[in-house]
Amino acid sequence: MTRSTETLLAAFREGKIAALARVVSIVENRRPDSDEILATLHPLIGRARRIGITGPPGAGKSTLTTLMARDYRAAGCKVGIVCVDPTSPFTGGALLGDRVRMEQVALDEGVFIRSMATRGSLGGLAAATREVADVLDAFGFDRIIIETVGVGQSELDVARTADSTVVVLVPESGDSIQTLKAGVMEIADIFVVNKSDRPGADRLRNDIELMLGLRRGVGYGSVPAHHGIDLNRAMNPAREAREASRNDSANAWTPPVLRAVAAKDEGVSELVESLDRHFGYLEKSGALRDKRRQRLVERVIDAVDRRMRLRLWKDEQASRWLQSRIPELESGTTTPYTVADELLEAHGHLVTRAEH
Amino acid sequence: MTRSTETLLAAFREGKIAALARVVSIVENRRPDSDEILATLHPLIGRARRIGITGPPGAGKSTLTTLMARDYRAAGCKVGIVCVDPTSPFTGGALLGDRVRMEQVALDEGVFIRSMATRGSLGGLAAATREVADVLDAFGFDRIIIETVGVGQSELDVARTADSTVVVLVPESGDSIQTLKAGVMEIADIFVVNKSDRPGADRLRNDIELMLGLRRGVGYGSVPAHHGIDLNRAMNPAREAREASRNDSANAWTPPVLRAVAAKDEGVSELVESLDRHFGYLEKSGALRDKRRQRLVERVIDAVDRRMRLRLWKDEQASRWLQSRIPELESGTTTPYTVADELLEAHGHLVTRAEH
Repeated sequence: MTRSTETLLAAFREGKIAALARVVSIVENRRPDSDEILATLHPLIGRARRIGITGPPGAGKSTLTTLMARDYRAAGCKVGIVCVDPTSPFTGGALLGDRVRMEQVALDEGVFIRSMATRGSLGGLAAATREVADVLDAFGFDRIIIETVGVGQSELDVARTADSTVVVLVPESGDSIQTLKAGVMEIADIFVVNKSDRPGADRLRNDIELMLGLRRGVGYGSVPAHHGIDLNRAMNPAREAREASRNDSANAWTPPVLRAVAAKDEGVSELVESLDRHFGYLEKSGALRDKRRQRLVERVIDAVDRRMRLRLWKDEQASRWLQSRIPELESGTTTPYTVADELLEAHGHLVTRAEH
Repeated sequence: MTRSTETLLAAFREGKIAALARVVSIVENRRPDSDEILATLHPLIGRARRIGITGPPGAGKSTLTTLMARDYRAAGCKVGIVCVDPTSPFTGGALLGDRVRMEQVALDEGVFIRSMATRGSLGGLAAATREVADVLDAFGFDRIIIETVGVGQSELDVARTADSTVVVLVPESGDSIQTLKAGVMEIADIFVVNKSDRPGADRLRNDIELMLGLRRGVGYGSVPAHHGIDLNRAMNPAREAREASRNDSANAWTPPVLRAVAAKDEGVSELVESLDRHFGYLEKSGALRDKRRQRLVERVIDAVDRRMRLRLWKDEQASRWLQSRIPELESGTTTPYTVADELLEAHGHLVTRAEH
């Protein structure tokens, strides 16, 4: 670790906001020292409650987030907010429309807000978000709200990194609950039907509850794949514990379907209460420990993934060897798949050790 | 390779559309045999011209694609179309609004259309799209149009896999060209200002041309990073050739800024002509060879990446070893980063050889 990073971490530990902001940037952009910083901060992680909020554009997630932050502040909690926006390369911040509303809490020094763009970051957005949340956790925030606009699978992956996931829907978000893709129902610990003063809100709530009834007893079964890797093998003990608790109906969690009109400040305290209840459930059932264990395993897998790529390709040997095979690839006397096999046979050992 | 895959490939070589559709599905979803199929088809690749079309939602890309396909068909070319849509988990096909218009060419058996969802596919969407385009190329399509809605960096990566990239903008797509993110100007070989009968079209064209003037002589400099890996080392000879041609002004390409009103069928033949001119430029300047070489290198890197992950994690050793470290991770006596290093030291050798 460089001297300047050590100085930075000392300021971070003293609670300097400027140091926090710099550490977040380093981790978000995977600059050098990023892994070392995360390793150093690792023992400080684990106190914060992580809350994911997702839903379609225009569902009122930012407004809800702002009001929740206000309530948490009133209860004496420090709040970190991570906003994940898919920035269009064409229209800039078009999807960030109401981000400006957050300014009402942004001036409070007990609140820290960071927007992350869904760029093609090395190792993936979900990993980067999880690590930024780790930094906020280590800094001492009590609640970390991760807000993602749900425009793709990657946003679901981000939401899944939280302890509790809130799915916000609005009556106009679709003709019916039928349009929700597989995956949305599974990730929700709490549903909020926002803009509940509009037509169709009751029907939407009924539809969600009907669907939840159909699925009751199905959820929380297996650990989702991470980068296509089946985590169930690495997670066996956790999974068995979870299976056991699932059969204990006293421990079961049925996602509540809440009403809210965030613009009129209605339903926010109910959401905060539901989140407290859900966290209590997570602690009591052992699911919290499972989730945190899963995050640890995912962190290892992500770190392994990054190391393999960097170690293989930062070495000139592998790149030069690949370069030497280009003429054969171009002439069609070999295929990229054969070359990949041969490259790993010749240079795959590079992944085993860090260069010093 | 299984017997059924051999039968499938025989039908594919005979030009059976049903076999094509199945091969595309296998490759898109990276089912078993996917790499072997691609390796088998590899010698058949290289005849098609690949055209990427991107732009913001609502710019009229599907309409343009349909009309281009019609023109290519009239010229006797077979046309494959790959549509890449970011499907929202909340609203289903909301962004696919005008996909239905393509039906006017979909009944022509010289046209094959495949929609790909931007799910979190193993190895990435750009890789999957490139490989589906390979399959269409091997099948014998003369033009492959890859249409992507530009809502994120990944769509730019997809567009970059083409020989020629068309960026479609509309007057209402932003207050000005200022909102275009870095990267958009760089990938465009041809600009189309669609809906040019609307106010602001001329200003948009002027703005684009002004910006192109400022950047003239800057483009085509370096090879973009792939998965964060600097390809320049592997691409050295190609790059030197490109640098040389860049200094030869007779060989320079300045992206034209075309007018179109796709809904009224205006400007399509100009676009097709511009694409032909651009392809002529690519051939003459050596840039086509560079691009194809780059695609070969990227295919190797993607295949290496997939192999490393699969070989490491499909082995029970590594998963069990990781499982055994969970208690230390949970107690905080070690960190995920240390565990990742140790795991690669102990089990990294697994990546060097395929299991048989």
